[in-house]
Amino acid sequence: MGKRVAVVLSGCGFLDGAEIHEAVITLLHLDRAGAEIVCCAPEIPQADVVNHVCKEKQAGEKRRVLIESARIARGRIKPLSEVSAGAVDAVILPGGFGAAKNLCTFAAAGPACEVNGDVARLLRDARKTGKPIGVICIAPVVAAKVLGGVEPKVSLTIGNDAETAKAIEAMGARHVNCAVDQIVTDEANKIVSTPAYMLARGPADVDAGVGKLVAKVLQLCG
Amino acid sequence: MGKRVAVVLSGCGFLDGAEIHEAVITLLHLDRAGAEIVCCAPEIPQADVVNHVCKEKQAGEKRRVLIESARIARGRIKPLSEVSAGAVDAVILPGGFGAAKNLCTFAAAGPACEVNGDVARLLRDARKTGKPIGVICIAPVVAAKVLGGVEPKVSLTIGNDAETAKAIEAMGARHVNCAVDQIVTDEANKIVSTPAYMLARGPADVDAGVGKLVAKVLQLCG
Repeated sequence: MGKRVAVVLSGCGFLDGAEIHEAVITLLHLDRAGAEIVCCAPEIPQADVVNHVCKEKQAGEKRRVLIESARIARGRIKPLSEVSAGAVDAVILPGGFGAAKNLCTFAAAGPACEVNGDVARLLRDARKTGKPIGVICIAPVVAAKVLGGVEPKVSLTIGNDAETAKAIEAMGARHVNCAVDQIVTDEANKIVSTPAYMLARGPADVDAGVGKLVAKVLQLCG
Repeated sequence: MGKRVAVVLSGCGFLDGAEIHEAVITLLHLDRAGAEIVCCAPEIPQADVVNHVCKEKQAGEKRRVLIESARIARGRIKPLSEVSAGAVDAVILPGGFGAAKNLCTFAAAGPACEVNGDVARLLRDARKTGKPIGVICIAPVVAAKVLGGVEPKVSLTIGNDAETAKAIEAMGARHVNCAVDQIVTDEANKIVSTPAYMLARGPADVDAGVGKLVAKVLQLCG
């Protein structure tokens, strides 16, 4: 049997939800490796809805994170509240502004952000029980906030953006610069990260880094 | 310079728009091959909005095909009315119910369906000028309706679904059964098709067929 991997989605579209290319390419590599994929998302309203043509908020429009995430998961998705670290072998968070708006409030609040309770529980329990965690693009800020206090200090990358790197350090994690086609592996805490669309010019760049991240996460499952 | 390829999207989500995995995997293979991608979609209302968790229509909700398609294209998208066959080297249509609900009315009307005017124009002009066309999953029904009358007869696959195959034949095209990891190439009309989620069990299956389709479409550009 393949490893069971929770993929935590945060909507559907990079400006208000999960980054679609990163999410699909994560699913592609997991599927190709024979993993059992458990897509999940919090059953909460989206922070906002953004028109992806003009990039402006669609005022008055309401969407829910679980329902929109289900588009990427083709309907095979669970509420995050029903997914525990004990029931999976690993956890992966694709990026997109949804990770910083819906899974936590980093986009608005920076290092003082709050993290959704189920997201925090899953990440904390995964680390505590030695289940590997993969975080892509901006999603490392979620892991930095939840696991910023642990020893040894968590190492992560969001590429090379100085301001976001500084925020990660302010939350108690260590930031490591990284190229788009590479990963940063924190072996002690079993956390793998890759920059993806923090640096990528297109899906082929995303594929290079996310392919390595998925392989490393599965390897760390033991 | 790489080839310029129009990717015609029909929304964002397999139940009311473009099938997201098929669309992203198409973009991935085009990007990896160095192609210039021109995402486009008709600027029209979606036929419906479907909740991808419970699979029921979200009554009263209105979304627009171009705006939702922009989620997959990360905002880099044109109205289909502004894209002509003369400005690109090839055209690819991913599948999803959006192809059969928004690009044409096949989902409701079967072989008697109507095709969106800009979609019909682009496919007709592409064939007339020898630009290759790739159609994925259910999208071959759109090509069958638009090009069903041409000589030599167009050959297409939607996998092995007997009812849809019969509808394709009723529209004047020839249906050829095909495995999920294979393509059907109509060399005379320069049309390539692959079953994708008509048969796929997951994104790795989609990747196998769509990878071959993209390679063949680019080869046919000459």
